[in-house]
Amino acid sequence: MSLKLDFDLVVKNGVVVTAADEVACDIAVKDGKVVLLMANLPVTDGCKVIDAEGGYVTPGLVDSHVHIAQSAAKSLGAKSADDWTTATRSAVAGGTTTVIAFAVQNRGTSMQAAVDAYHELATGNAVADYSFHVIVTDPSEEQMHVELPKLVADGITSVKIYSTYPALQLSDSQIMDCLFAARKYGVTVMVHAENADMIAWMTKDLAARGMLAPIHHGTSRPPIVESEATNRVLAISELLDCPVLFVHVSAPDAFKVIRAAQSRLLSVFAETCPHYLLLTADEMRRPNFEGAKACCAPPLRENSEDRERVWENTVNGTVTVLSSDHAPTKWNDPHGKQLGLTKASGRPDGDFRAIPNGLPGVETRGPLMWSEGVCKGRMSPSKFVELNCTNAAKLYGCYPAKGTIQPGSDADFVIWRKPSARRPSKVTVDKLHSACDYTPFEGHDVQDWPVMTILRGKVVYDGSTNEVTAEKGYGRFLKRGKSSLAGPRNRWLSEWRPQYVEEQEAAERAAQ
Amino acid sequence: MSLKLDFDLVVKNGVVVTAADEVACDIAVKDGKVVLLMANLPVTDGCKVIDAEGGYVTPGLVDSHVHIAQSAAKSLGAKSADDWTTATRSAVAGGTTTVIAFAVQNRGTSMQAAVDAYHELATGNAVADYSFHVIVTDPSEEQMHVELPKLVADGITSVKIYSTYPALQLSDSQIMDCLFAARKYGVTVMVHAENADMIAWMTKDLAARGMLAPIHHGTSRPPIVESEATNRVLAISELLDCPVLFVHVSAPDAFKVIRAAQSRLLSVFAETCPHYLLLTADEMRRPNFEGAKACCAPPLRENSEDRERVWENTVNGTVTVLSSDHAPTKWNDPHGKQLGLTKASGRPDGDFRAIPNGLPGVETRGPLMWSEGVCKGRMSPSKFVELNCTNAAKLYGCYPAKGTIQPGSDADFVIWRKPSARRPSKVTVDKLHSACDYTPFEGHDVQDWPVMTILRGKVVYDGSTNEVTAEKGYGRFLKRGKSSLAGPRNRWLSEWRPQYVEEQEAAERAAQ
Amino acid sequence: MSLKLDFDLVVKNGVVVTAADEVACDIAVKDGKVVLLMANLPVTDGCKVIDAEGGYVTPGLVDSHVHIAQSAAKSLGAKSADDWTTATRSAVAGGTTTVIAFAVQNRGTSMQAAVDAYHELATGNAVADYSFHVIVTDPSEEQMHVELPKLVADGITSVKIYSTYPALQLSDSQIMDCLFAARKYGVTVMVHAENADMIAWMTKDLAARGMLAPIHHGTSRPPIVESEATNRVLAISELLDCPVLFVHVSAPDAFKVIRAAQSRLLSVFAETCPHYLLLTADEMRRPNFEGAKACCAPPLRENSEDRERVWENTVNGTVTVLSSDHAPTKWNDPHGKQLGLTKASGRPDGDFRAIPNGLPGVETRGPLMWSEGVCKGRMSPSKFVELNCTNAAKLYGCYPAKGTIQPGSDADFVIWRKPSARRPSKVTVDKLHSACDYTPFEGHDVQDWPVMTILRGKVVYDGSTNEVTAEKGYGRFLKRGKSSLAGPRNRWLSEWRPQYVEEQEAAERAAQ
Amino acid sequence: MSLKLDFDLVVKNGVVVTAADEVACDIAVKDGKVVLLMANLPVTDGCKVIDAEGGYVTPGLVDSHVHIAQSAAKSLGAKSADDWTTATRSAVAGGTTTVIAFAVQNRGTSMQAAVDAYHELATGNAVADYSFHVIVTDPSEEQMHVELPKLVADGITSVKIYSTYPALQLSDSQIMDCLFAARKYGVTVMVHAENADMIAWMTKDLAARGMLAPIHHGTSRPPIVESEATNRVLAISELLDCPVLFVHVSAPDAFKVIRAAQSRLLSVFAETCPHYLLLTADEMRRPNFEGAKACCAPPLRENSEDRERVWENTVNGTVTVLSSDHAPTKWNDPHGKQLGLTKASGRPDGDFRAIPNGLPGVETRGPLMWSEGVCKGRMSPSKFVELNCTNAAKLYGCYPAKGTIQPGSDADFVIWRKPSARRPSKVTVDKLHSACDYTPFEGHDVQDWPVMTILRGKVVYDGSTNEVTAEKGYGRFLKRGKSSLAGPRNRWLSEWRPQYVEEQEAAERAAQ
Repeated sequence: MSLKLDFDLVVKNGVVVTAADEVACDIAVKDGKVVLLMANLPVTDGCKVIDAEGGYVTPGLVDSHVHIAQSAAKSLGAKSADDWTTATRSAVAGGTTTVIAFAVQNRGTSMQAAVDAYHELATGNAVADYSFHVIVTDPSEEQMHVELPKLVADGITSVKIYSTYPALQLSDSQIMDCLFAARKYGVTVMVHAENADMIAWMTKDLAARGMLAPIHHGTSRPPIVESEATNRVLAISELLDCPVLFVHVSAPDAFKVIRAAQSRLLSVFAETCPHYLLLTADEMRRPNFEGAKACCAPPLRENSEDRERVWENTVNGTVTVLSSDHAPTKWNDPHGKQLGLTKASGRPDGDFRAIPNGLPGVETRGPLMWSEGVCKGRMSPSKFVELNCTNAAKLYGCYPAKGTIQPGSDADFVIWRKPSARRPSKVTVDKLHSACDYTPFEGHDVQDWPVMTILRGKVVYDGSTNEVTAEKGYGRFLKRGKSSLAGPRNRWLSEWRPQYVEEQEAAERAAQ
Repeated sequence: MSLKLDFDLVVKNGVVVTAADEVACDIAVKDGKVVLLMANLPVTDGCKVIDAEGGYVTPGLVDSHVHIAQSAAKSLGAKSADDWTTATRSAVAGGTTTVIAFAVQNRGTSMQAAVDAYHELATGNAVADYSFHVIVTDPSEEQMHVELPKLVADGITSVKIYSTYPALQLSDSQIMDCLFAARKYGVTVMVHAENADMIAWMTKDLAARGMLAPIHHGTSRPPIVESEATNRVLAISELLDCPVLFVHVSAPDAFKVIRAAQSRLLSVFAETCPHYLLLTADEMRRPNFEGAKACCAPPLRENSEDRERVWENTVNGTVTVLSSDHAPTKWNDPHGKQLGLTKASGRPDGDFRAIPNGLPGVETRGPLMWSEGVCKGRMSPSKFVELNCTNAAKLYGCYPAKGTIQPGSDADFVIWRKPSARRPSKVTVDKLHSACDYTPFEGHDVQDWPVMTILRGKVVYDGSTNEVTAEKGYGRFLKRGKSSLAGPRNRWLSEWRPQYVEEQEAAERAAQ
Repeated sequence: MSLKLDFDLVVKNGVVVTAADEVACDIAVKDGKVVLLMANLPVTDGCKVIDAEGGYVTPGLVDSHVHIAQSAAKSLGAKSADDWTTATRSAVAGGTTTVIAFAVQNRGTSMQAAVDAYHELATGNAVADYSFHVIVTDPSEEQMHVELPKLVADGITSVKIYSTYPALQLSDSQIMDCLFAARKYGVTVMVHAENADMIAWMTKDLAARGMLAPIHHGTSRPPIVESEATNRVLAISELLDCPVLFVHVSAPDAFKVIRAAQSRLLSVFAETCPHYLLLTADEMRRPNFEGAKACCAPPLRENSEDRERVWENTVNGTVTVLSSDHAPTKWNDPHGKQLGLTKASGRPDGDFRAIPNGLPGVETRGPLMWSEGVCKGRMSPSKFVELNCTNAAKLYGCYPAKGTIQPGSDADFVIWRKPSARRPSKVTVDKLHSACDYTPFEGHDVQDWPVMTILRGKVVYDGSTNEVTAEKGYGRFLKRGKSSLAGPRNRWLSEWRPQYVEEQEAAERAAQ
Repeated sequence: MSLKLDFDLVVKNGVVVTAADEVACDIAVKDGKVVLLMANLPVTDGCKVIDAEGGYVTPGLVDSHVHIAQSAAKSLGAKSADDWTTATRSAVAGGTTTVIAFAVQNRGTSMQAAVDAYHELATGNAVADYSFHVIVTDPSEEQMHVELPKLVADGITSVKIYSTYPALQLSDSQIMDCLFAARKYGVTVMVHAENADMIAWMTKDLAARGMLAPIHHGTSRPPIVESEATNRVLAISELLDCPVLFVHVSAPDAFKVIRAAQSRLLSVFAETCPHYLLLTADEMRRPNFEGAKACCAPPLRENSEDRERVWENTVNGTVTVLSSDHAPTKWNDPHGKQLGLTKASGRPDGDFRAIPNGLPGVETRGPLMWSEGVCKGRMSPSKFVELNCTNAAKLYGCYPAKGTIQPGSDADFVIWRKPSARRPSKVTVDKLHSACDYTPFEGHDVQDWPVMTILRGKVVYDGSTNEVTAEKGYGRFLKRGKSSLAGPRNRWLSEWRPQYVEEQEAAERAAQ
């Protein structure tokens, strides 16, 4: 049989990795999409060929939790270190071809306005493909039941809610309104779970005693603050029978309640981040206010045993996705971490209340997780793909375009060297492509770094020169569908059930 | 050796029961107190002798959770069925010689004012000894750190807080203020734990669909509402290292979190009530609006397996005290349960939102628990005494005057028949001494009823005639000391610790 | 570009399912292997084309737990209903293209002899591909450290051990010897976990009281018998740091200990079977001795809540593989289940001690799990593939030849109709291809049945005629490698460590 | 009223402690028994008066687990350091007035013979009151159903069984026979739970590698060896619905399974010992073979976190009794710990297999637990009494003669100083009264030591001179009744039930 096929690109000699399989085969690409998978594909003419040299070819990584050009602490005068160009250049240089960032609703305004504003920032500036989650701060009837379905129709199918931060926090009642609507319209809900009152109470007490150095950012948010809020939002989601995703889970007891819920088949998902796997609170104890570089929320945890629990849950199935929670503010900048000093009324160890929270990490996530996970034997390449690519794509409705390598998928790949050819190096900020002037992983060993990153068939990062080879604007907005991971299931409700369940049942009965 | 002793009363031929021991011996009483314990005490002259006829003599029961002349639902126009006289007559007729009722702080007013008002109601009217817990609705700096120590000095050493009910509810932050002060001044904190927002949300939904019959009182407060709030307040108490008591625990998952905390030696206590051990939600399904008689919060739970879990936790050590949560409103009365009909806008099945919550039970608690616990072999007489007498007295600082039978204790006794002489009967409202016109236990079997109740050496209830034999005013206000059950223990606090802990440590160092 | 490719077969218009992905694409096959995957593959000449009509194409199912031509109860005079031909015809008719059966070592003889004997039975007679696990009954030094490595070299890389049955049972000490060797040579160990002494003790007592009807087979083996043995063997495997697989897990508490171990990353795997998901002990209560048809070990469990726990653990990740545990003995046959009557000394309800254990099921497993799992929404098609194909192939070292659909894999497929085209039917024994004369699932609904089964590119079962279309001898012996699922990890061992760990470390040090 | 009473002794000015109460009152004694309790008893004539000077008066301690004149390792040539006189002198010098020691059945001989032999050793030689548990090594039908009821009639109402030690070990089947009989005759069963096969396997491996120093005694018996056997015997006891007591529990996971069982109201009891609360495996690492002094089974555990878990379970209610497990062999003696050197074939670090197991401790238990428990605030005096006196007396059927201070009880007391008068000292072997030549607690601080010990009204130990003031032979054999702690409860048994349950039910039905 003779096939006449026209390819733009063939990746040869790689081991193609999906969340389930490792296959030694070649990949043929046309118009930015995977066309076929075949071992020893005979390439007969001048099609572009990339030789993976026996290395692994994973799907392009999906980072479903990044903050870009968003000031979480605007009132302090803080500024995000990255704009859409620098952030997405940084992403592709670490193997990430898709990012989902946040569009923050301002209270009293509409979610659509937030999305519009962030579209404006992103359009024409991104190097990676992208989408937005809406941060809901005002779940009014109008927003939840008029605007939300419109956003879903526009491909924005996920929201994030906070149980903490005065500017963002929802009450339990508002969380219920939001989850209820999310369940109705098939929207994935991300939850930042920390108990706001506990944090405020402890912060006040710490301030009264002058304990404001960076380490006390951690003191003010102990693990129980996270596990309490996790349990509470989980209870709400169980009551409403609505799937929910806990982001940046760090506390062992939070993992415990999540795993117990998963065990009984509740649709509960968990995300964690490299810094909870690799760093501890000691980073916040660095002298000369450098602890500020490590301030994020939830904070880095105290000891290596906590860290070991995060690894356990990452590998044992509790964690659904790994993300970076990239939230960069500069160190040596008056609108960056230095705010914690300049607003500290002369305290030489600063004031953690004025430190903009967050760590840069969109570029380092992939190499660090490949290195610490796969190269060190903690997980298989397939598990790496599941956690860093496939599950995020499924959870946020952009699968199978993103998150796997199959005929029909976008031709997004990362090539990693075979074990015997790995090139160990150290993370240093000068090699990174973010505009942020530090990395919390400075000096960390990595066993390997992507050989190259390919987005829709085009090499966007070339590891041999450490250059980003795509122009800004190459990245496209990604219209997403509904999650393919969540499955509702009724509990507790006994005689009571949400109105729409009854409506739906009536409709089904009518249709028979 | 010849002893010249003067007794007022000797109880002979009884088996004296304490929380640890059963001893066949006589008890001699003088001036309202136990003077000596001795087997076969030779009574040589005209001292009054009561023959226990081989029966058990337990301490007078302590009911540490009763609502007397308090309208939990004043805004509805509801009235408490009992005043101090009828409530305490009912108490002693069921073997209870000490009651602790609630004095409710009104927001914006002082706790002292509440205590004064309730003193006025009680003084001269009680048949049983009594004290008050203050229900804190406004834990301001002034109230917590000026008034609270004064109340402690006056013998009011316990408070109750609510995580639900708009008129009573404290925020997490206020709960922290209150627990922090309680820890400082050695005050026992009772917690009514249900998630207010969840209840409100569900109630609104139920109302929107016209589901307002009494059973839906239960629907609006499913077990997860209780277990969530229990876990949350427990987290706060763990963070502040402050002992806490969860009252009327009914949900299996709430017991689970409490037991887990006790296992790691947190000072967490639990109370439950006879209705959670003996009744189910089916009571709220009785026709003709009679379900209203069984409406209380937390609500009666759905099934007998839940009930079995309450028994398990009552016997296995998780439960610290049994109380009645006596909260009587009449059935056939325009200010009673009928409000749920009259305010129901013509709905024939009523409106649970207008039903005054609560059940009468101060009289039935003792006989039902003796019957279902001891007579049916679920617990030993000593365990009965521990749960119904001793632990309440210790927890609320009136031990050893109350709660045990030892030289020096108040001569408060209940005499119960020996097994072979028990007289089974049925609970019926006409035999009870409360002013309430129904009992939720109507028709329940009891294996025995107190032969008599003795308070400070005087027979206050005579079972042979079913008569209360003391005049109103015989009952005295009980000045209480600090709890002898709770023991703080530090966790989580790492580098952060409450100010006063540091002060205390400094003082200790200075004293060395 | 023009490709000259030669295919034997193209499967078109299917949704190819792997354990991670669903992809609408075509599959091209050459020489019994998958050559390429491509959407809308243009077939230009006379290559054989099968149209999947929009249905799902899963990998051929792997049944890793079947008993073929093996008499578990030889001493009773029982005979297996199936020989290699009937068993494997039955397999392919249910979508199973690979079976792994058991070769039983007889005590005092060698494992090699057992393998040789079973080879003789199988060679030239199978329709499906096949391999053997060795049932170890005599783990002597010679067998474990001389023969076992030879068997591994011959592609036999798994063993099964029993903690029960006098003829098969190993002591704890022998289990340790076996696990220790298995760890050393990379052998997968399957464990049948039930406490033999408990069963014997209860059986003796039941016999003494004449309680010997089929239902008492279940009475003699309550769930605690299984959960105890599971915990015990798990402890041994943890001590020796050796991966272990518990087969046919049925007791909720056994799942609990397994899941807890998995949570801490022990290499513990679990298998369950359709009968534990779909049947209860009531089957053993059928009159006229028909309960005997349902006797297997562990026995079917009492209630539907137990069954729900099995489903939960099947879906939540605890269960690694689904198998049939096909162990057929005829019903209406003097060497079959009737032995329980003929050896019952005239008892009309029989004697469970004489009933040959086991159920037929190799043909029904696939359709029932597709029907109850996928069609009823309990699991995704990918989860079905993971449990019924991929994990077994990985666990037993025949991946990626078996268990997935990727370039290079064996062209083993099952075609299932798309949802709208499903053809519900009922399981009846007359449609099945086993020589067994009954099925425990008689009358059960299935939503669909395989359209066809393809083994190495050849249609071996045609659902349109319900015919097995391959000749005996088409099935091949499969040489297997080591498991790709297990990963050892050290615990407990503190100062003590197995000799070979030290040797290995010394070797590694020397190599540096 | 005038009482004419004749007392032998009055203990004045003490705080009498029971498991539930602390009462400031005096105790009057006549004929070795408590006659009355009364505050400020007016003593008018020459009755002997002991002034407790405000200190605590606890019941005489009961040590329910001591080995006296019993060679656990007779085959090695080991000898017990103590005979009945030295052991019981040591007991009373530490506040212990009752000991229960072991009579070992030799396989093939009768339990009665064992009891007779131990009676002979004890009669006329004891200073403390005493009884025996029978160690069952041969639970034949005859022994269990003919001899056991006779022993019960003679006041021997408890047995001990071992799951380890070749000379003592019972199989699971024999454990079932024994538990079944024990349930029938109301006998308390103590279980030494360690997995024999695991220990043997590891010991063999350790020997093969020359790892035989004392610390490897611990290596050979890791915590999982104990938790496995605990879970196994617990499963058996649950199946047979027979109460069971695990002795010397040391492993956190063993406590976990016990507590979980208690939570569901199984009659499961636990004992632990001071050495698991106060020492770690480091004691076995002492140089010059001194680690041998700390060899016991289960072994001391590795770290202080394990030890903390033992404390938690001691205080939270899981532990029922504290005992010493006194098992003394001399250090500097050819029949003592030196055997581990002399039988070590010249190995300078000895051979743990030849070290006689066990620690002396009958004298130090009381003072250490008072000191570490009460004086350090870990438990109340009542909890101390519960664990060291009352529960043992109840569990082993000698309550209320022993274990409490009530009218009618034996006048067994220990007087401890009030907090302000405590006299800290250090434990040193020269102050102790055992014949053993070392104590594992050498140099440990104690906050106080008994002021005196009183047995049946007689001072048997005077702390002011550290003298034992009673003659040998003062101690009496104690005829015991049935346990008053255990309560059976049916589970699992579904249609199967033990014969005698049915008989009993039939009898009850017949009696109605």
